[in-house]
Amino acid sequence: MAIRTDLALELKEMHTEEIAGVTSEERVEDGIKITCVKVENEEGARKIGKPVGKFITLEIDALKYEDDTLADNGAEVLSKEILKLMNLQKESTVLVVGLGNRYITPDSIGPQAVSKIFVTRHLSGIEGENFKFDFRAVSAIAPGVLGITGIETEETVASIVNIVKPDYVIAIDALASRRLSRLGTTIQLSDTGINPGSGVGNNRKELSEKSLGAKVIAIGVPMVVDASTLTSDIVENVGSFVAKKSEGKIFNMLGSLNFDERETLIGEAINEKAENMIVTPNNVDVIAKQAALIIAEGINRALHSELYS
Amino acid sequence: MAIRTDLALELKEMHTEEIAGVTSEERVEDGIKITCVKVENEEGARKIGKPVGKFITLEIDALKYEDDTLADNGAEVLSKEILKLMNLQKESTVLVVGLGNRYITPDSIGPQAVSKIFVTRHLSGIEGENFKFDFRAVSAIAPGVLGITGIETEETVASIVNIVKPDYVIAIDALASRRLSRLGTTIQLSDTGINPGSGVGNNRKELSEKSLGAKVIAIGVPMVVDASTLTSDIVENVGSFVAKKSEGKIFNMLGSLNFDERETLIGEAINEKAENMIVTPNNVDVIAKQAALIIAEGINRALHSELYS
Amino acid sequence: MAIRTDLALELKEMHTEEIAGVTSEERVEDGIKITCVKVENEEGARKIGKPVGKFITLEIDALKYEDDTLADNGAEVLSKEILKLMNLQKESTVLVVGLGNRYITPDSIGPQAVSKIFVTRHLSGIEGENFKFDFRAVSAIAPGVLGITGIETEETVASIVNIVKPDYVIAIDALASRRLSRLGTTIQLSDTGINPGSGVGNNRKELSEKSLGAKVIAIGVPMVVDASTLTSDIVENVGSFVAKKSEGKIFNMLGSLNFDERETLIGEAINEKAENMIVTPNNVDVIAKQAALIIAEGINRALHSELYS
Amino acid sequence: MAIRTDLALELKEMHTEEIAGVTSEERVEDGIKITCVKVENEEGARKIGKPVGKFITLEIDALKYEDDTLADNGAEVLSKEILKLMNLQKESTVLVVGLGNRYITPDSIGPQAVSKIFVTRHLSGIEGENFKFDFRAVSAIAPGVLGITGIETEETVASIVNIVKPDYVIAIDALASRRLSRLGTTIQLSDTGINPGSGVGNNRKELSEKSLGAKVIAIGVPMVVDASTLTSDIVENVGSFVAKKSEGKIFNMLGSLNFDERETLIGEAINEKAENMIVTPNNVDVIAKQAALIIAEGINRALHSELYS
Repeated sequence: MAIRTDLALELKEMHTEEIAGVTSEERVEDGIKITCVKVENEEGARKIGKPVGKFITLEIDALKYEDDTLADNGAEVLSKEILKLMNLQKESTVLVVGLGNRYITPDSIGPQAVSKIFVTRHLSGIEGENFKFDFRAVSAIAPGVLGITGIETEETVASIVNIVKPDYVIAIDALASRRLSRLGTTIQLSDTGINPGSGVGNNRKELSEKSLGAKVIAIGVPMVVDASTLTSDIVENVGSFVAKKSEGKIFNMLGSLNFDERETLIGEAINEKAENMIVTPNNVDVIAKQAALIIAEGINRALHSELYS
Repeated sequence: MAIRTDLALELKEMHTEEIAGVTSEERVEDGIKITCVKVENEEGARKIGKPVGKFITLEIDALKYEDDTLADNGAEVLSKEILKLMNLQKESTVLVVGLGNRYITPDSIGPQAVSKIFVTRHLSGIEGENFKFDFRAVSAIAPGVLGITGIETEETVASIVNIVKPDYVIAIDALASRRLSRLGTTIQLSDTGINPGSGVGNNRKELSEKSLGAKVIAIGVPMVVDASTLTSDIVENVGSFVAKKSEGKIFNMLGSLNFDERETLIGEAINEKAENMIVTPNNVDVIAKQAALIIAEGINRALHSELYS
Repeated sequence: MAIRTDLALELKEMHTEEIAGVTSEERVEDGIKITCVKVENEEGARKIGKPVGKFITLEIDALKYEDDTLADNGAEVLSKEILKLMNLQKESTVLVVGLGNRYITPDSIGPQAVSKIFVTRHLSGIEGENFKFDFRAVSAIAPGVLGITGIETEETVASIVNIVKPDYVIAIDALASRRLSRLGTTIQLSDTGINPGSGVGNNRKELSEKSLGAKVIAIGVPMVVDASTLTSDIVENVGSFVAKKSEGKIFNMLGSLNFDERETLIGEAINEKAENMIVTPNNVDVIAKQAALIIAEGINRALHSELYS
Repeated sequence: MAIRTDLALELKEMHTEEIAGVTSEERVEDGIKITCVKVENEEGARKIGKPVGKFITLEIDALKYEDDTLADNGAEVLSKEILKLMNLQKESTVLVVGLGNRYITPDSIGPQAVSKIFVTRHLSGIEGENFKFDFRAVSAIAPGVLGITGIETEETVASIVNIVKPDYVIAIDALASRRLSRLGTTIQLSDTGINPGSGVGNNRKELSEKSLGAKVIAIGVPMVVDASTLTSDIVENVGSFVAKKSEGKIFNMLGSLNFDERETLIGEAINEKAENMIVTPNNVDVIAKQAALIIAEGINRALHSELYS
C-alpha cells in the first residue's frame, strides 16, 4: 500500500508496538512540544524506514498565525535544536540549500527561506565602514527542480558543495505527511540529511554526508499529503468501520483484498486516478511564508549567535 | 452532502435523467471538444443550481503541455467562443478582472492572466510616434482576496466598475471541480457572470450584470477539488461498492446514514477534518502558467481582432 | 529648469535664505536624525511648493544594511512619528495604500510594504479559537499603476476609500530626490498626503483629505533621481566651476543661457535625451526590501500598539 | 577615465579612425538593422578591448513595444543569427544560463528569459502519451548573484557545466552601455562568451570556452548606463562645448585636467559620488519582459527548429 510520509514520527506511529532500535522522547519548551525520535541501529533503521540518526519534531503554533511574537519564540527554540544537532566550531562554514519549486506555493518553503538567509561567505575578511566582517562564512542556493532546470537537484547541490566545501549543509524542504492534521503545524529536523524512502513511495533523492562529503542537517515542514495516500487511508478506514458497525456480521471485505483488487476498488470508488495530486491547506500561502520566516530566522540565529545575544 | 463544483457540466452530470429547461450540445472544433450547457428558464436554473444563461466548456490539451502551437490554437478557438457570448461593438469598452490569490499557485490564474492583457484604456485617442491608438479601451485589475486586503473582492470590483463604466466585465477565476480528472483540462466560459452556488457549498460571491450594472463574461479553469468533496465521494462510492460486491447480502450501510452520521463516519474514516483543504495537480505551476497564457491571448484576440488578422 | 524632488527638505535647501512661513527643526532620537519641516501658511506653501503641513525626515541607517536590530529600532522610531501625525482613537480605522509598480524594483516599496501589513478589517468582531479579534480595522491595497491597469491610481484609491470609509489613509510611495546621496537613506512622512508638485516637473497625482475625504498620511523613501535632474545639475555646476576656476576671466557662459539654449546645450553635451530615465543605486533590491520591511513594521506597531507592548 | 560599456559597437565608436584588425558591416533584414563587428586578430582585440570573435548587434523595435507580431519577427531573426554563430549538430547539447539578479528589474533579463526556455534534458529518450521526446537535450539555470548566494557566479556555472557537459553554453545577461539612447533598443550576441573588460571599468567575470571547456554564445541587452559613465561624459562634453562656443578664447579647461583633477571636478560638479548608481529607463519593466520573451523565443527556435517549421 502506497502510504507516503517524510515524517519519522508518522513512520513510528504506523507500528502499534515498540520498535527495537527506535526510541522516542517528548518534552515541552517555551510552549513548544518537542518530540525526538532516535533511530539507534540498523535494525531500527530497516524497520522504520529511516536511517540511523535523530529526528526532532517541533509543534509550532506560529506556523498558522502571522504573529511576530510567536514566530520569534519559534525561531529561538528552533535555533537551539539546530545547534544541538551540529558540532559547530567558530570556523565552521555552512551552505544552506533551499530545495523545491518556487512556483508551487506548498513546495516554495525552501526557496523562500533561502532568500532570508544572512549570506556572508563573500564578505569574510572584508572590513566595511561600519562593520568588520568576521562572521561565519555562510552561502545559500536554491537549485530549482528537475522539471525547470533539466538537471537533477542532488547533482547541482553536489557540484556546489564541491566548490564551497562547507563543513555543514543545511537543507530546507517541504515534506509530505500522511495526515491532513499535520500540515503546516510542525517542523522536523534531523542530522541524517535527506533520505530516499524505503518502499514508501517517496521519490526524494539522497542528500547526505555519504553523497555530499559534508554533514547534512535537514529541516522541513509537512506541506502536502499525497492524494493517493489520503484515498488509500480512507478506503481502509471505511472498510474497518463497516465491519465494526455490523458487529462481526460483515467481515472486512476491504481488508481481505489483495493489492491489485484494492487498487481496482480505489479506482472504482473515486472513479479516477489520484496519482500526481497533492492535498494542501487553502491558506498555504500564509503557512509557507511563516514557515520560511521562522526557519530562516532560526538558522540565522544558530549560525550568527553573536548578532542575537 | 457537501459536493462543491463550479462547473455546469458537472452539475448536469449529477442528474442521471434529463433536466427540464437545461439542454446540452457537443461539437469538436480544431481538435477541441466544445460542450455548451444552456439553462433556458428558471425551472432549469433551480434544478441545476446555475442561473439562466450559457456555459461553454472547452477541452484544451494545451493546458497540460508547454506547446506553443497547441496554445495558439486554443487561444484562437477561445477567442471565437468569447465573441459569441458578447455583442461587441466597435466602441464597446471592457474591464478584465483577475480574481484569486496570486500567492497560491492554483488560485493565481486570474492575476497571472491579467498581467498579460493588452491594456489600452489610458492610450485611447493618443497618437504615438509609431502607433495611432484607436484601439478598444480595455482596462484590467487584480483586486486581491479578502484575507490580504481586508476588503470583499466584489465590493472592490463594483467600485472600479463604477469608475471605468465598461460595457463588459470579463472575470477570470480558478474553479473548483468535483473530479480530479477535470483539473487543468478544460476552460469554462459563461455569459452569466460569477454566481454563488445554490446549496453546493460554494462560497464564491456574485459578479453579475445585476450586481455590477455591466454584462459579465466569466472565464475559469478547474484547478482544485475540495478535499471534503473528494472524501465524501470516496466514502459514498466505497459504500455502494461493498453493497454491490456482497450481492445484496450487505445493504449499503453508508447510503442509509443521515447527514450527521455520515459526517461522523467521514471524521472517523479519515481520523481528521478535510475542511479547508484543497487537492491540486503536482504540476500546478505549469498548468496555471499555460492557462493564464491561453486565456489572456484568447481575450486579447477577441478584443483587438484588428491586431491578429 | 526641470529639477524634480518629492522631498520638502530638498525644496527648502534650494532657498539659501530663510523662507517666511517655513520652519525647520532637527533632533536625534535613538541614533536617528529627525528633521521636521513645517509649512505654516499659504505664503510658505507657495514659496516652497508644498502644502501647509508637517514633513518629517528620518535618516535611518538600517535602510542600507540587512541588520535586524537596526531595522527594529528604525521601525520603533517611525511608529512614534506616525502616531504624532495622527489623532488615532481606539475605534479609528485605517486603509493602507501601496503606490507604485511592483515590477520596477525602486518603485516597488509601496506594494512590497502592503504585503507585510497586518490586515484585520475582515476579522473585526470575529472570535477565533485562540484569538479574540478586537483589533483596529485595517485594510490594505496596492492599486497598481496606470500603464498596467489603464486606470488612474487616484481614481482607484478614491473608489476604495468610498467603500471602506476609513478615518485615515496611509499612502506608501517611492520618492524622487534631487541628490544621489539621499537615495535609500531617509524616510519622509507627512500629514499632507501626496501632492502634485508646483512647477517642479512632478507628475504625481493628489491623494489628500480634500480629494479623498479622509486624512492622508504619506510615507515615502527617495529611491530615484530623474536623469534629467542629474544632468541639469551637472551642467549648471560645471559652468559655475569653470567660471570660478578661471578667476573671473571666463564668465559663467552656462549661467547666462536662457532655458532653450540650456536645453540645447544639455542635448549636445550628452548627445541624447535623458528624459524618462531614472538613476538608482545598484543594490536597490536590498534597499527596497529593507525599506518596505521597516515601513510596514512601523505602521503595524503604530496601528496595533497592544501587540507590541 | 572610467567609461563602461559592454557593447563592441560602442567600443568601436570611441575610435574615430579605423582600427587595424577590426571590421564592421551593416545590413537590414526583415526590418531589423544588423551590425556585425569582427575582431580579427590579437592586435584588434588589444585596441578595442574585446577578444577575437564576432559581435552581432540587432536593433529591434519590439523591445520597446508590447507587440506580438514585432516580437515574433525579432525572435525569428535572432534565432537565425544564433545559429550562424554555432556549429549545431543534431546531437549537440546546450546549457542556457540566465545571469543577473532577478530582484533588480534591469538586471532580471537573464533569469526571466531562462524561465521561458524549453527545457528537455530530463526528457531525452522518454516516450510520452502524445510526444516522443527526441528533442535536443537543453538544460537551463539562473545561478543568482554573489551578493545573494555568497558564491561567485562563474564558479557555479563552471560546476554545472562540469555535470551537464554541454557542447554549448548560451549565457544571457543585461549589459551596460555608454549611451542612454541605446538602452532597451538592441540585442548583442557574440561567439566569444562573456569577457571581463580591459580597462573599461567592467567588473563582469569571464565565461568563455577557455574558462568553461564549452563554446559560449553570449546574448545581452543594454539595460543600464553607469551613472559615473554618464556624468563623466557630460563633464567632458560641457568642457568641449564651452571651449568651442568661446571660439578659442577659452581653452578646454576640462580637457587639460589630469585624472585626479577631473575626478575632483566631477565630485564638486555634482556635489556627490555617482559610484554604484545606474541609469535605466522608467519603463524598464516592459523592456525587460519583452527582451526576455524575444531572447527565450529566439533560443527555443534555434535549438528546436523542428517545432517551428
